Amino acid sequence: MLKLVILSSDKDKYEHLIEAVQLPDLEIVSDPAQAEIALGEPKSIRDALPHLSKLKWAQAIYAGVEPLVDPAQRRNYVLTNARGVFGPLMSEYVFGHLLFFEKKMLDRIQAQKEHKWRRMDPGVLRGKMIGLLGVGSIGAHLAGTAKHFGMSVRGFTRASEISPQVDKYYHGDNILEFADGLDYLVSVLPRTKATNKIVDEALLNALPNHAIFINVGRGNSVDEGALVQALQERTLAAAVLDVFEKEPVPADHPFWDTPNLYMTYHTSAISFPEDITKLFIENYDRYVQGNPLKYVVDFESGY
Amino acid sequence: MLKLVILSSDKDKYEHLIEAVQLPDLEIVSDPAQAEIALGEPKSIRDALPHLSKLKWAQAIYAGVEPLVDPAQRRNYVLTNARGVFGPLMSEYVFGHLLFFEKKMLDRIQAQKEHKWRRMDPGVLRGKMIGLLGVGSIGAHLAGTAKHFGMSVRGFTRASEISPQVDKYYHGDNILEFADGLDYLVSVLPRTKATNKIVDEALLNALPNHAIFINVGRGNSVDEGALVQALQERTLAAAVLDVFEKEPVPADHPFWDTPNLYMTYHTSAISFPEDITKLFIENYDRYVQGNPLKYVVDFESGY
Repeated sequence: MLKLVILSSDKDKYEHLIEAVQLPDLEIVSDPAQAEIALGEPKSIRDALPHLSKLKWAQAIYAGVEPLVDPAQRRNYVLTNARGVFGPLMSEYVFGHLLFFEKKMLDRIQAQKEHKWRRMDPGVLRGKMIGLLGVGSIGAHLAGTAKHFGMSVRGFTRASEISPQVDKYYHGDNILEFADGLDYLVSVLPRTKATNKIVDEALLNALPNHAIFINVGRGNSVDEGALVQALQERTLAAAVLDVFEKEPVPADHPFWDTPNLYMTYHTSAISFPEDITKLFIENYDRYVQGNPLKYVVDFESGY
Repeated sequence: MLKLVILSSDKDKYEHLIEAVQLPDLEIVSDPAQAEIALGEPKSIRDALPHLSKLKWAQAIYAGVEPLVDPAQRRNYVLTNARGVFGPLMSEYVFGHLLFFEKKMLDRIQAQKEHKWRRMDPGVLRGKMIGLLGVGSIGAHLAGTAKHFGMSVRGFTRASEISPQVDKYYHGDNILEFADGLDYLVSVLPRTKATNKIVDEALLNALPNHAIFINVGRGNSVDEGALVQALQERTLAAAVLDVFEKEPVPADHPFWDTPNLYMTYHTSAISFPEDITKLFIENYDRYVQGNPLKYVVDFESGY
């Protein structure tokens, strides 16, 4: 019997879902010391690492696995993260917010409060250009939704060009060329050394003044001071941030009151146990058969 | 030479766009009495009808052509309306508003005003059920967007079943069965006798209490009193209305202050001259060659 420990605040739900499918040779245990396999939040797995003496495989239920790729932690096991499941949720978040601006929703709610029949021509997504910072499985999904809405799509990646729905790819030093003329810039970048403050003053200056920036990746990729300045000086029309350098954002952070800056609270894509369990089952099947697992994290690159 | 009169507030733009493509045998004239073809807003064409003595074909730049199908007006010409171009815009409007609710945007803006890091799990479109009242070219496009977002789709029509992306069709007396269990109800119905107050107390009662209703069709299809009551009694979660029985909505209308009722001002899909010109060119080509025109309006049914 293979022994699995579930290290999650949704433990009961995962246990129920996994038991329901009766995976062969699998037993769910509560003692980490017995477990060869772990499933759970990256932070919970990290906290249990000293006890997980038999660990061979850990399946994280998030995409971001920073606590586990920290060089201070041991790495003598296979780490897989959650991918492929967040694309649809991220699309809802990103395009929902873009439409919120284009359809001038706040202006209309204000007009209604004033009992004013005020025809304001809405903006459109169709024909606009979106730039994706990072095109992995989430970026590829965003590209598909952008195409559905009749937009053109640029992608900036280190080297990969996985999505055929990206019209043009940019790499390396071409980031300012990538930014030039974008109506929307969306970052889905993970937290790595290479992504640190990639959205800096130069990149923000390269965007048109009417551009909207959305960050659903990680907070480290944004130079927060430069972003505040761009919004204050109206060289950027709006920003929607779901992730931050420090979370929760401190009460005295300038973001709270920066004009046209919209904060959500790291909820753009939440992990539904139903989705993650499907992914775990698929990987368990591979594990039992000795096949390579899906979504293996490279401890060095961090994703 | 065939003579075209343009009867539109966007006259200059249409003239410019049509002249740019140099259609064979076509002359743009300003005197309606000379014109065999008219292009413009339905109301402007109607006002010119007494002078349009040579009129054989009128291309309306809107989908709704109520002024022209009025039985008091002459009908001895072919009337075509604009179709196929509004689907993408309607999709932006409808799904933008659904996401506005699911992502709890107003609650988040409020939390930010209070400097509160308040994690609120957003709702999702994925897995939800949308019901389309009317499935013509706009409804078919909405069905496609719903499928892109992983939703299931019901369609209610008189008889037609044109979109394969509708999972199940309902007709005639089955409207309450159609409504049962819907998360979202969207009306794209045109103004006809058959659509009068189709969204009535019985239909609203058949919807779950968490349902959201969006009307981008025509105002006549809604029993406005029943809608206000459903929202006041919280048997309907929200309504977004772009069209109304009377437009502009009178200043003393209860809609302005009904809870969870969001008004926009007949702007869910505006006619872009670029789109309409393409459609006109295609129909002109058919006209010259003696082929049947696209999007011919049936004066009796009204669309």
